[in-house]
Amino acid sequence: MVFEILRRDGLARIGRFQTRAGVIETPALLPVVNPKIATVPPRELYDEFGFRALITNSYIIKNSPGLKEKALEEGLHKLLDFDGTIMTDSGTFQSHMYGEVEVTNEEMVQFQKDIGSDIGTVLDIFTEPYWTKQQTADSIVTTLERMQVACDMKGDMMINGVVQGSVYQDLREDCARKMATMDVDVHPIGGVVPLMEQYRYAELVDVVISSKKGLNPNRPVHLFGAGHPMVLALAALMGCDLFDSASYAKFARDDRMMFIDGTYRLADMQSLDCNCPACRGYTLESLRKLTRDERTKIIARHNLYQITSELALVRRYIREGRLWELAEMRCRAHPALLDGLRRLKEHKAFLERTEPISRDGAMFYTGSESRGRPIFHRYAERIMTRYVPPTDKAAIFPEGGKPYNRVYFNEFDKAMRAGYTPIVMSPFGPVPAELDEIYPLAQSLFPEITDAETVSESDNLTFDFIERMGFKEVIEYDEIPEDGTMEYDPDVIRAKAIANYQFGVDVADAMFRGKIDIVKSRKTGKIRNVISDGEHILSLRAGDGLYTLRPEGAVRILERIPSPRMRVIVNDDSVPFVSEGRNAFAQFVLDADDEIRPMEEVIVVDKDDKFLATGRALLIKSEMKSLKKGIAVKVRTGSGDEA
Amino acid sequence: MVFEILRRDGLARIGRFQTRAGVIETPALLPVVNPKIATVPPRELYDEFGFRALITNSYIIKNSPGLKEKALEEGLHKLLDFDGTIMTDSGTFQSHMYGEVEVTNEEMVQFQKDIGSDIGTVLDIFTEPYWTKQQTADSIVTTLERMQVACDMKGDMMINGVVQGSVYQDLREDCARKMATMDVDVHPIGGVVPLMEQYRYAELVDVVISSKKGLNPNRPVHLFGAGHPMVLALAALMGCDLFDSASYAKFARDDRMMFIDGTYRLADMQSLDCNCPACRGYTLESLRKLTRDERTKIIARHNLYQITSELALVRRYIREGRLWELAEMRCRAHPALLDGLRRLKEHKAFLERTEPISRDGAMFYTGSESRGRPIFHRYAERIMTRYVPPTDKAAIFPEGGKPYNRVYFNEFDKAMRAGYTPIVMSPFGPVPAELDEIYPLAQSLFPEITDAETVSESDNLTFDFIERMGFKEVIEYDEIPEDGTMEYDPDVIRAKAIANYQFGVDVADAMFRGKIDIVKSRKTGKIRNVISDGEHILSLRAGDGLYTLRPEGAVRILERIPSPRMRVIVNDDSVPFVSEGRNAFAQFVLDADDEIRPMEEVIVVDKDDKFLATGRALLIKSEMKSLKKGIAVKVRTGSGDEA
Repeated sequence: MVFEILRRDGLARIGRFQTRAGVIETPALLPVVNPKIATVPPRELYDEFGFRALITNSYIIKNSPGLKEKALEEGLHKLLDFDGTIMTDSGTFQSHMYGEVEVTNEEMVQFQKDIGSDIGTVLDIFTEPYWTKQQTADSIVTTLERMQVACDMKGDMMINGVVQGSVYQDLREDCARKMATMDVDVHPIGGVVPLMEQYRYAELVDVVISSKKGLNPNRPVHLFGAGHPMVLALAALMGCDLFDSASYAKFARDDRMMFIDGTYRLADMQSLDCNCPACRGYTLESLRKLTRDERTKIIARHNLYQITSELALVRRYIREGRLWELAEMRCRAHPALLDGLRRLKEHKAFLERTEPISRDGAMFYTGSESRGRPIFHRYAERIMTRYVPPTDKAAIFPEGGKPYNRVYFNEFDKAMRAGYTPIVMSPFGPVPAELDEIYPLAQSLFPEITDAETVSESDNLTFDFIERMGFKEVIEYDEIPEDGTMEYDPDVIRAKAIANYQFGVDVADAMFRGKIDIVKSRKTGKIRNVISDGEHILSLRAGDGLYTLRPEGAVRILERIPSPRMRVIVNDDSVPFVSEGRNAFAQFVLDADDEIRPMEEVIVVDKDDKFLATGRALLIKSEMKSLKKGIAVKVRTGSGDEA
Repeated sequence: MVFEILRRDGLARIGRFQTRAGVIETPALLPVVNPKIATVPPRELYDEFGFRALITNSYIIKNSPGLKEKALEEGLHKLLDFDGTIMTDSGTFQSHMYGEVEVTNEEMVQFQKDIGSDIGTVLDIFTEPYWTKQQTADSIVTTLERMQVACDMKGDMMINGVVQGSVYQDLREDCARKMATMDVDVHPIGGVVPLMEQYRYAELVDVVISSKKGLNPNRPVHLFGAGHPMVLALAALMGCDLFDSASYAKFARDDRMMFIDGTYRLADMQSLDCNCPACRGYTLESLRKLTRDERTKIIARHNLYQITSELALVRRYIREGRLWELAEMRCRAHPALLDGLRRLKEHKAFLERTEPISRDGAMFYTGSESRGRPIFHRYAERIMTRYVPPTDKAAIFPEGGKPYNRVYFNEFDKAMRAGYTPIVMSPFGPVPAELDEIYPLAQSLFPEITDAETVSESDNLTFDFIERMGFKEVIEYDEIPEDGTMEYDPDVIRAKAIANYQFGVDVADAMFRGKIDIVKSRKTGKIRNVISDGEHILSLRAGDGLYTLRPEGAVRILERIPSPRMRVIVNDDSVPFVSEGRNAFAQFVLDADDEIRPMEEVIVVDKDDKFLATGRALLIKSEMKSLKKGIAVKVRTGSGDEA
């Protein structure tokens, strides 16, 4: 019963979660089924909508005499007539709604086991957003104690380890970190419904991100109570895998239809133009004329189709590595959601840790909020710390079409001959001429009409960069003297600059030694291979303009750069496989460099730092060390492969 | 055969266009039907998809021996088996694609008449975006000559008067203005396909807006060649009523599926999660396994469903007065579309002319682009020219929750007592305390996390405002002296400030005279009525915080403010109806104030400036004067009504 990550896009992931009742493909939403009123019968949820899991409330069952006995006798799956995974809630939300509940944690956990819940929930304490920090901290102590009891009792039932902590980010992270050490199976983030109801999305973002910081990446994260289609992209972007919705039915009973851009009352609507299978054939008039029960059924199904459509879209964007783009579109539906999106910028350093090194398609800028993406943060960090200018003077160019070296070919050459390093002021900040083809500089699209946010941030970065590089002189591109005579090798400068940027200066120095030969494509004129002292150390990818590391390069790094830098260390069992070029799986990873990012070039070594293979990391260290299944490194060349 | 505007949102409109073959509800898209290959049979377009109009190419029919004879014998409707309106293109686009065509304008117009086209097209000259201005100007002369011939020949066929002009805004506007004087029925904007193919959306916006400036508002505007769902919201926002799509079928033959966020190749897709009636039941695998013909049929239908869904959504947003919000969401799908959206800001003065005075729901800010909306421009203009501060010093407050007078109740009072006019720095710019409840100041939602664009524009406006108002002293809100003793009547100050803002200072002065009594709601404490010298001149609406004009107020304006200010002048035929409180219809309007905006309070008068009624304008002057059907002024109170 493990959670496997099949695809990832930053914190977002497409996963496969195995329970004893079947497999849930994540991101997934669990419809909430009221055991008393099946607005949409569970069998239909399974067969017609494809839901493989649902959530129901064990507290309500326990307190309903008829239901209780039936559940205990026949079991939950038969009671609800559902073959998939059944998660149960414990009464915690009832305590939020109605005050104290009259059951104990032990009773509730035992009852959930007894009725055959696949994933039970501790009776945790719902931390309200208005609570003081002390009150919150105290209640977390109780929740953790109850959680330990629940873990000890759970048997073969999975258990939800609910992260609480009100709006206090340190308490959330601390609670999450403690939950992560316990024998729990799923991590709901609890106590967030009031934040969503009150449209406090910026705080929701703080709560989710701080919880994610403490949680174990090998367990699915459930954003308790999140189920409106308009919030799913943002929640998935923050690494939430599971969602649930009671609203699809509650709203339906209230004649409210969910759409991706909001919820609309049937009474206020002026036409029904929905092509979903539930609405097909109905007009607003014919829908209104139905009996209340019939209408509720149609609207509940409509709401479910909106949810499944959006989840499918979220999965598509994750596969394409474009979930930021989708979330940025979706968060325009309400200014409060936009606040959530904008708040993500404050968490850019954490988000950068899982941001892939590159992706297949071009990055689309969707508005000034895009500048908050972690890829912008990474570029700014790396250019400041890893760039070494080839001259001590700089010439500043405006953005003027890509790739810069084609547009400014003669001007760049004139600048270099005169001893000025050409720097282009881009929306990413300063871009030295040598780096113009790396991801995302070349593989990104911006509107030509810029905005104040992007301009001012780019300006500030450029000023910082100039200062940091210690240029003795900085001029505008139209002030470059004509008569420069400096000789330089643009290919070697470019090859080294890319290596510095991608690997760090010390690693690049370890590889680049003696005579450097550059092999270029006859067709495109672009660098293809870097040969150092006769050894082929690096190949440049045309797609993202970054290197793949060759075994000869890897060995040079191992010789000069101490472990664990760039390493993924695997146990002896996997040595023969990896050295033959097979992928390195997470369960065999002993340790890894904490600075490795998804899609980064890495070196797989054994416990004695012996070279086994080169490849690209699919996971970061914390994931490699905790996941029990899945590829950690997609190996390209093993030490035993023919070169 | 007229075009009637039923609902409007700025330039966008929901219309009813009557042709001899039926009614087209606009915005509408006309699928392009290739007379040789009916990917989706026209009968199905009508019955299944609800298309009431299509477009086909008379040039292709004329040049296909079998088709030509059949069309001439049976007529176009029978040839295509379509009962709705058929528009024909003339071969102009073929000349763009393949160079010169070997027909004359006269031949093509006659042929279109002969085969029974409902709306024919002149053989105009396609002005390419790369043409010189002179070349473009010369070709427009020819197009206009041909247009005159076509108008003379058209008989009972409607005719398209195509606006050309390449990317030259003055030529577009001039061509449009000349077309507007001719006896044409529909105004296509032509020559824009290359701009869309090359993702030059900023220029597309310039072209459409400059064409709209010259066109006659009583004819539908057709954006020739625009049919991708992702561009429809933006195009409708600019006042385009008709669209057409050949791509739904062309893309289908190429295994490309349209979605609202772009076009995807079947080969690149990783799953098919579409709930549209065409895709329902198919998986990616089962769709790929179909024969090419079967697949084309499914994908073409899928593409049409995407288009009809989006058009339905566009109509919904127009009805809700929220099309800006939808366009701002849609334009995030590609940075080039975002360029189009951002370019609209340059046309804000023109867009302001049709921007409604208020709307029912709150305005949602979706990003820094929202600051480009005409409502921001209007506020800035009016506050600069229509506000009269009650004191000669100002105290500046930060935005801090709405309504400002509730949040800052004591501080505002302290400021006024000390002689400082309280001014809040909002995303709209400076907001004097008295105006805090008018639309859109109170009826708008912004994220709490602001952006550089909004901050800097708001700051600049506030500085300009302070200078313009000539305040002798400006302090921060925390510097207000405690011991102020100035006496003031907050209700009268507020009542007058709103009147100044809404009507202009001179008009407000004409109404406010003698003793002013303010009637307030006992329940809310808000102003309800303004009584001047015992006469009830104005009532304040709770919804948008603006006035409705009472007959007593209207008469005072007529006495003091020269015509045509605030007037809509109707002919004698409508005098008895309007004075009894019936609506004033466009066809009876003789003249009107050019400064009237949609939803503005107006005075309906006869040709001798005699008071007939007060009401709200639904149209602006140019629309009132050209439309042959529809309500110009929704009359509230007629002179003959009991008070």
